[in-house]
Amino acid sequence: MTELRKTVEAFWAASEARDWEAFAETLAEDVLYEAPLSRERVRGREAYVRFNREFSGDWHVRVERVVAEPGQAVSWIRFTLGDEVNIGISFFTGDEHGLITGVPDFWPDPYEPPASRAHLTERF
Amino acid sequence: MTELRKTVEAFWAASEARDWEAFAETLAEDVLYEAPLSRERVRGREAYVRFNREFSGDWHVRVERVVAEPGQAVSWIRFTLGDEVNIGISFFTGDEHGLITGVPDFWPDPYEPPASRAHLTERF
Repeated sequence: MTELRKTVEAFWAASEARDWEAFAETLAEDVLYEAPLSRERVRGREAYVRFNREFSGDWHVRVERVVAEPGQAVSWIRFTLGDEVNIGISFFTGDEHGLITGVPDFWPDPYEPPASRAHLTERF
Repeated sequence: MTELRKTVEAFWAASEARDWEAFAETLAEDVLYEAPLSRERVRGREAYVRFNREFSGDWHVRVERVVAEPGQAVSWIRFTLGDEVNIGISFFTGDEHGLITGVPDFWPDPYEPPASRAHLTERF
């Protein structure tokens, strides 16, 4: 089984470069994208390339961490669009060729911690 | 280097069981907890055990996925407290004994997808 880490790194490098041909080459034909928290789903390589290609604006991605096994991986990215900064976390599954078959992702927002645990933490 | 996967599984099993002694055994003495999106930080094993032990309510955790390498791992959990369900994503780093040294975590919320991409997705 091919190492998924390289595929995930290529996936983000191609996104950042808007190189949609290279991006497509990281994906299995039947790739399934899901956003569990917005309940969005995109099926298949062509549709998923289009979903990414049409995301408008001068956005940039920077990979903060990749954790990978042969058949699954996770990336933590910093996504910026103008002054807006978001964290994106994507769970990848891969096939025996190291192509991406599944990409559930998460976009957590900042939040205020409960006052009830203020005595247990520092803030930074 | 000891496999972190087992440590992460023990960490969540001990949490679910409220077995704070077993929980402490998964942690390095100088473990650092950080919540990047609430800017909370907890330093050291004793303080981090207390931070978890004092989280009140009849909460439960179920591990959905673990992705692990020898020195780092990620878990995706389902956290329930009464009717409330949350997804928690934790990035672990480990030392040479397989003990947890760092635990940044994320708690993403549901969100409405932008209408601008409705033509590119299905909903579920």
